[in-house]
Amino acid sequence: MKALEEKIVKQGTCIGSEVLKVDTFINHGIDTKFLDDMGKEIARIFAGDEPTKILTAEASGIAIAVAAANHLNYIPVVFAKKNKPNTMGLDVYESSAKSFTKGSIFTLRVTKELISKDDRILIVDDFLAHGQAALALYDIATQAGAKVVGCTAVIEKKYQGGSERVRKLGVHVQSLAVIEKMEDGKITFE
Amino acid sequence: MKALEEKIVKQGTCIGSEVLKVDTFINHGIDTKFLDDMGKEIARIFAGDEPTKILTAEASGIAIAVAAANHLNYIPVVFAKKNKPNTMGLDVYESSAKSFTKGSIFTLRVTKELISKDDRILIVDDFLAHGQAALALYDIATQAGAKVVGCTAVIEKKYQGGSERVRKLGVHVQSLAVIEKMEDGKITFE
Repeated sequence: MKALEEKIVKQGTCIGSEVLKVDTFINHGIDTKFLDDMGKEIARIFAGDEPTKILTAEASGIAIAVAAANHLNYIPVVFAKKNKPNTMGLDVYESSAKSFTKGSIFTLRVTKELISKDDRILIVDDFLAHGQAALALYDIATQAGAKVVGCTAVIEKKYQGGSERVRKLGVHVQSLAVIEKMEDGKITFE
Repeated sequence: MKALEEKIVKQGTCIGSEVLKVDTFINHGIDTKFLDDMGKEIARIFAGDEPTKILTAEASGIAIAVAAANHLNYIPVVFAKKNKPNTMGLDVYESSAKSFTKGSIFTLRVTKELISKDDRILIVDDFLAHGQAALALYDIATQAGAKVVGCTAVIEKKYQGGSERVRKLGVHVQSLAVIEKMEDGKITFE
């Protein structure tokens, strides 16, 4: 998505070769018109996979997940929780993953009643980097007996291998902006 | 909002007189068509206050904030962070508040560049209960020199006093469903 690449170059900040900060328009401040455009593009890419539900992880995945759902005939969104709220029952699917940026392990949890075996799941997130969150969401969906039909992110850092890991599971993976490398503050897109 | 009250009665679960669980359509699973309808209603209520930006708190406020922004000519959304990400700089506004449901203190943070003194802020959240999160967001907005013109939530538990506390600051407060009391699993709306 050309407009996204331009926005990343203009407003993003590289922190070393691993971290890209896009706080001004995606995951702290949100440019809602642009978000809607990105949702429309995700819908265009994945409509043919006929998803029935979008699965994402709190917090930064929620906005783009809802934007995509709006353009896929308002299919439901489920966001996995990172902290176990005291309102969450015991009937949950959970899967743990490592955060490379934070250097810690996190656990994603979804209440069982929110995913069924008949669901065709589209995984949506802000970033697809090492793929840990996406693989945990894939794990949760398959625990529920659902089929994961697609996986997308606003920004994919291809060189960190996540997209390849998810693709190997037979999932249609396509992100809106795919970064080949970040070096000396310069971003090279695929 | 009548349809919301009906949905709360049908799908919500009271936990004692303090906590209302609405996991199936607001803050874990999201009914995106209904979310859009709620966003439209918030826009209708607050359009006259001419907000230029929506301020919310991660994670459960994000979806409804974006839905409202979509119907307010796509004004930007800023969501305050509860955990300090390693990409966040030092130039932040912060304000602490107590979570009554969790019995702990949390700190909300917003990068300074995301709010300006010219902004007219609409605070949007999933719940307005004791008002702690709303007051912390109000504090952050006023630190930035911005004017808070409105405050809304999907569900207001009026008897916990938050709406009254925010209203005393001269802010237009109006939520989509206002609960007078919860007793023995029965919800009484205003």
